[in-house]
Amino acid sequence: MVTDRLERLAKTLQEHGIEHVLFSSFISLRYFTGYQATVELEPSPMTPLLGVFLWIRGEQPTLYLADMEPGEGIAAGVLRESFSSYIIEKPMFAVEDLSAKLAAKLRELPRSKVAIEPEEMPAALLDALRYGCPQLEFCSFKDVLSTFRMVKDAEEIDTMLAVLALCDLGQGIAKQQATAGRTEIEIFTALRRAMELSEGGRVPIIADVVSGPRTALTGGPPSARKLESGELLIVDLVPRHRGYWGDSCNTCCAGEPKKEYKAAFDGLASVLSDAIAAVRPGLRACDLDQQVRSGVAKLGGSYPHHTGHGLGISWHEEPRIVPYNTVALEPNMIVALEPGMYFDGRWGMRLEYVLRVTESGAELLSQYRHEL
Amino acid sequence: MVTDRLERLAKTLQEHGIEHVLFSSFISLRYFTGYQATVELEPSPMTPLLGVFLWIRGEQPTLYLADMEPGEGIAAGVLRESFSSYIIEKPMFAVEDLSAKLAAKLRELPRSKVAIEPEEMPAALLDALRYGCPQLEFCSFKDVLSTFRMVKDAEEIDTMLAVLALCDLGQGIAKQQATAGRTEIEIFTALRRAMELSEGGRVPIIADVVSGPRTALTGGPPSARKLESGELLIVDLVPRHRGYWGDSCNTCCAGEPKKEYKAAFDGLASVLSDAIAAVRPGLRACDLDQQVRSGVAKLGGSYPHHTGHGLGISWHEEPRIVPYNTVALEPNMIVALEPGMYFDGRWGMRLEYVLRVTESGAELLSQYRHEL
Repeated sequence: MVTDRLERLAKTLQEHGIEHVLFSSFISLRYFTGYQATVELEPSPMTPLLGVFLWIRGEQPTLYLADMEPGEGIAAGVLRESFSSYIIEKPMFAVEDLSAKLAAKLRELPRSKVAIEPEEMPAALLDALRYGCPQLEFCSFKDVLSTFRMVKDAEEIDTMLAVLALCDLGQGIAKQQATAGRTEIEIFTALRRAMELSEGGRVPIIADVVSGPRTALTGGPPSARKLESGELLIVDLVPRHRGYWGDSCNTCCAGEPKKEYKAAFDGLASVLSDAIAAVRPGLRACDLDQQVRSGVAKLGGSYPHHTGHGLGISWHEEPRIVPYNTVALEPNMIVALEPGMYFDGRWGMRLEYVLRVTESGAELLSQYRHEL
Repeated sequence: MVTDRLERLAKTLQEHGIEHVLFSSFISLRYFTGYQATVELEPSPMTPLLGVFLWIRGEQPTLYLADMEPGEGIAAGVLRESFSSYIIEKPMFAVEDLSAKLAAKLRELPRSKVAIEPEEMPAALLDALRYGCPQLEFCSFKDVLSTFRMVKDAEEIDTMLAVLALCDLGQGIAKQQATAGRTEIEIFTALRRAMELSEGGRVPIIADVVSGPRTALTGGPPSARKLESGELLIVDLVPRHRGYWGDSCNTCCAGEPKKEYKAAFDGLASVLSDAIAAVRPGLRACDLDQQVRSGVAKLGGSYPHHTGHGLGISWHEEPRIVPYNTVALEPNMIVALEPGMYFDGRWGMRLEYVLRVTESGAELLSQYRHEL
């Protein structure tokens, strides 16, 4: 599928009158080369940049990767070149080494244009290339790339199903564990453990786990706060599997929910299910946003965040389901919808499913079912 | 202590003839403002940059922070300004917004110099500032900053003690759990759970958990591989607490170790303890490296990696204990020492402690004791 993506990229470049590509975000690295970056925590102290994707017109697409990176997943047809990141023989100089290697290569090109991601390219690298290759013009491809991955291919859909199954598993454990006396962090470690044992390895995860009055904040990391009987718990799980992010949110109650919570939950669940029923190709993101927002308003609630968003290599991408966005849904977009309602200082609730836009409607990809 | 660091920075700037500062790595954000970035996984899709630290000569130091960032830990005396990161009213434009705000501010300055981190500054930001503020010269402060945090202050030492206690806890659990039939990922999830329950919240962690022949690889993430009786397990734990990283490594055996392992373990432990005994102010990193490397060679082994490294806001920083590094140890440097030996395809072993250089020698900060 990387091959198809590259073909599409070549066509887009041609439309923009740009000859070459030098991308540096690891979202683009994943998408155009298959490479699964292992960045799980922070930029590495060894190199501020894991790699770049260079594609000179007429040549083989090439991934320049820090030599400490394992390079898992690189697609057939993509060449791998290394640059120095962690060595014990001299001070680390990853960006200098990469810059020198790229400049040596690009210097040979005739006057032409290179598409770049200037927000994800270190200033030091671009400076070195401008200095070493004055015949090249570097052009931002940010706007093109922001919508380039909206429609998912078959390989992406398969990977998304696998990561959404991890969400399902986690939500099941969360619901089981949500009893009075347990802390948020206990619940979180239990569900993550189940996900990692199922995965047979580490699962990077972003998560909101908030209980009681903290639910009014919309989210937050798990704390040592103990659930009390009758309190709500919001669990929003965003795990990563093979470079793709899942998403899911349930709100449940420790013990018997009071009537107010029960009514809100049922109302929210039906707003969400109406939204899924409304999804079809051609529906504009802003209209879907408006339908869900007004549905929640009718319940007497509101939410300050998006109604939903696309997801894939990034956990928040186009199509953003937000008030300004006139983009129309298309088959094979994968979208999370997550209406909520929050009452300052008191309580909050959010329900989320992920769906795939089909030729005629929507297919629900999340398999767990919301349960208060 | 941020105040002291800023004073030292001001002095260093003066020595270099530079008036202002605009730092963009979150290592510098943490060090000079106290701010604890929540980045745990990858750059956020909402903004490639969480914030920048701007200090105009004669004005109050200011942290420009993405508005979705909570801003935990910001020191008194540091001003906070926001820029737009995640909003639902229009497309996300974090870098543009930050660039515009900074350019508006910097435009007023007379002809002068600004210290920057060009490897951790997005090219888009530097381009915007050069365009908007042509009277300013932007100078790399990379080399100065690489050694600026080597000697730790009292606040840093306290934080390091807390994070090293998390390492101790994790190593204890790992040793308990290292029995035949358990998988690497089971052991990892158990020790991380203990650390997170003790912390009362999430603990970002980098970890090698490798068993059997995988130990010959020096490290790697925990997998679904089952420990067999008599096999070795390397557990290297690098957790983060309040923005500071701990480090620790033990090698243990599932059941009774064979004689070869026992002899190697005892030999390695004594090389490490000789190294700690040798540490004192004035000792050069390369000489310490040489002592440890030759000690391991005498045992018939070798290791391809560093002998050790400084740690703190970064999990690998100066003083690097490597062959080329002539930097001399100074009191209140905090250093991890981690000799190992690896035999291709067969087995490997590594032992690591963290110490503080004192006026006359070394204080061992790691409290767990290596146990095979």
